[in-house]
Amino acid sequence: MKIGVIGAGQLGRMLALAGIPLGLRFLFLDRSADAPAGQIAPVIVGEFEDKAKLAYLGRQVDLITFDWENVSVEALSAVKATIPVRPPPAALAAAQDRVLEKALFRELRIPTPRFAVVDAHAELTQAVTRIGIPGVLKTRRLGYDGKGQFVVRTAQDVEAAWESLAGKPLIYEAFVDFSHECSLIAVRSTAGAMAFYPLSANTHVDGILSHTVAPWAQRSLERQAQGHVRRLLLHFDYAGALTVEFFVVGGRLYANEMAPRVHNSGHWTIEGAVTSQFENHLRAILGWPLGSTEALGHTAMINFIGSLPQREKWLGERNLFFHDYGKEPRPKRKVGHCTILERSAARRDARLKRLLKEYRGR
Amino acid sequence: MKIGVIGAGQLGRMLALAGIPLGLRFLFLDRSADAPAGQIAPVIVGEFEDKAKLAYLGRQVDLITFDWENVSVEALSAVKATIPVRPPPAALAAAQDRVLEKALFRELRIPTPRFAVVDAHAELTQAVTRIGIPGVLKTRRLGYDGKGQFVVRTAQDVEAAWESLAGKPLIYEAFVDFSHECSLIAVRSTAGAMAFYPLSANTHVDGILSHTVAPWAQRSLERQAQGHVRRLLLHFDYAGALTVEFFVVGGRLYANEMAPRVHNSGHWTIEGAVTSQFENHLRAILGWPLGSTEALGHTAMINFIGSLPQREKWLGERNLFFHDYGKEPRPKRKVGHCTILERSAARRDARLKRLLKEYRGR
Repeated sequence: MKIGVIGAGQLGRMLALAGIPLGLRFLFLDRSADAPAGQIAPVIVGEFEDKAKLAYLGRQVDLITFDWENVSVEALSAVKATIPVRPPPAALAAAQDRVLEKALFRELRIPTPRFAVVDAHAELTQAVTRIGIPGVLKTRRLGYDGKGQFVVRTAQDVEAAWESLAGKPLIYEAFVDFSHECSLIAVRSTAGAMAFYPLSANTHVDGILSHTVAPWAQRSLERQAQGHVRRLLLHFDYAGALTVEFFVVGGRLYANEMAPRVHNSGHWTIEGAVTSQFENHLRAILGWPLGSTEALGHTAMINFIGSLPQREKWLGERNLFFHDYGKEPRPKRKVGHCTILERSAARRDARLKRLLKEYRGR
Repeated sequence: MKIGVIGAGQLGRMLALAGIPLGLRFLFLDRSADAPAGQIAPVIVGEFEDKAKLAYLGRQVDLITFDWENVSVEALSAVKATIPVRPPPAALAAAQDRVLEKALFRELRIPTPRFAVVDAHAELTQAVTRIGIPGVLKTRRLGYDGKGQFVVRTAQDVEAAWESLAGKPLIYEAFVDFSHECSLIAVRSTAGAMAFYPLSANTHVDGILSHTVAPWAQRSLERQAQGHVRRLLLHFDYAGALTVEFFVVGGRLYANEMAPRVHNSGHWTIEGAVTSQFENHLRAILGWPLGSTEALGHTAMINFIGSLPQREKWLGERNLFFHDYGKEPRPKRKVGHCTILERSAARRDARLKRLLKEYRGR
């Protein structure tokens, strides 16, 4: 069985590392042959919207999936006629456009921050009047890791935001004064089986995920999140891993965005859950039984952004699992991560604090 | 950092799967490009004793290791002048010859079955007289998975054994009426740090490992085994994983053989220990800190020999970790394994019994 994966980044690499022991083979499509997954599986070098390359990929494999969501839905839809594409491209289409995504959340009774479509300056003025300040002006498409966003904190920021982002379809969203950010990763198989990982609490710095702790044992929030994500899974007749990021405000969840794929906030599942998100994504798209999503202890995941910490020192840390994506160091680039596993949340939190301090002071 | 590995079998594949997350790259030397490890890393196709190919491998990598022990020590020694080869070829030389191996065990005060060198028919007669019947006539070199052995149970068997194996250097060993077989896997880093995995109990069928349970909590045996293996590690100024298989007779261990590498009886460490034997072998040969060898629960490993069980059914088993080596099914060939992880030895043993029955009845 050979899986075609669009995108050969670290998510694709970890998918392959999870799938190879199951006897799966992989073929990637990416702009670069030396992308992280290209170091362990062959890569067709090409653009993600290149229909000929996608068709060629489709002829070589049994099934197509993707490791990021900025893939051309139109190009994928053409391939879909000849070979299964999972998760469904319809979920990809919704995830690619912040307006469609939030409209879907509303339709499915998933609370989400107030928002307005902004295609012209006048609409921005109206949106700011209606939704208020603070707010966030964002590009509707192709935003990730805090790119394509401008926080409007004062009336003076409105013009700067417009100048920074004008020319692209935009969305203005109410700024959510959240106490926490969290995410739920769910998997649903082609056979309809569903499983949910424990909720994780995520901390972003400059718009990029810095670290995650899981399980984040907030039972009432977890129930809310599972209800919301279940409706999304059923809506799409979904197959694969689906991640939804939420803001927490006064015990209530507001959906921020969804990712129809494995997710950075689920890296802790490699060592911290019985079955990783990567293995379960593959099981789900293949219609195999899902593995247990149960947590094995108290984990924290720290992203290595820009550069790695001192490898040999960190490898000397007990129950610390080190991941180097094989990427060149570069500012704001995710080049690796580590996960620590502890028997109690208190020990985990204390150790996370110490390691974050050490990493940031490098 | 690029690691050259001689042999691209399932052990090499699992080494690469453990090393890639650490940022390591791999290059293999094997007779076949489609060997299990060749499915995830490049392979130089050639014979293991091909000095030109070994020299070429040495020029491409930072360090050489091996995934099986039937490698030419002479050819390796030539490479060793230009690039580190770990574990030390001297350990390989001892492991390749049952007489040198047992002589070394004796020298290091490690009990071993009585044995005699057999190069001629007369020596066999003398050996049988001195050591007695039952005994086992074995080739000194290149035996594995029960190949190159003949059990002498009666006086009539002596001639048949001679006819079956004559022409090669042989060894006649006392047949050990053991209650159990077990193995200890140790790792020692170039910096001298040592760590020992819990003892595992191994069951062979027709000379091939069928299944392993670990930890096999026999404290007194574990202490004996650690003492013996520590002496071997120090003797060779060893770096890497070293496995020693023992027979258990009345509370005493008799060393059967050693393998200067990761070992089939340590596959349970992938999911059943904090750090797998594969990752620790790499940490050890690179001089990195060793990871914890602590067990996470009660595991059993079942080898899939000849063919795999029904994948989808077995994937539906809770806490069962499935490994498919990507090999064509063939009688007596190890094509995969699975590990189960349980909270108690009793649950583990009951489940192992059920799964073995199901696998054998396939």
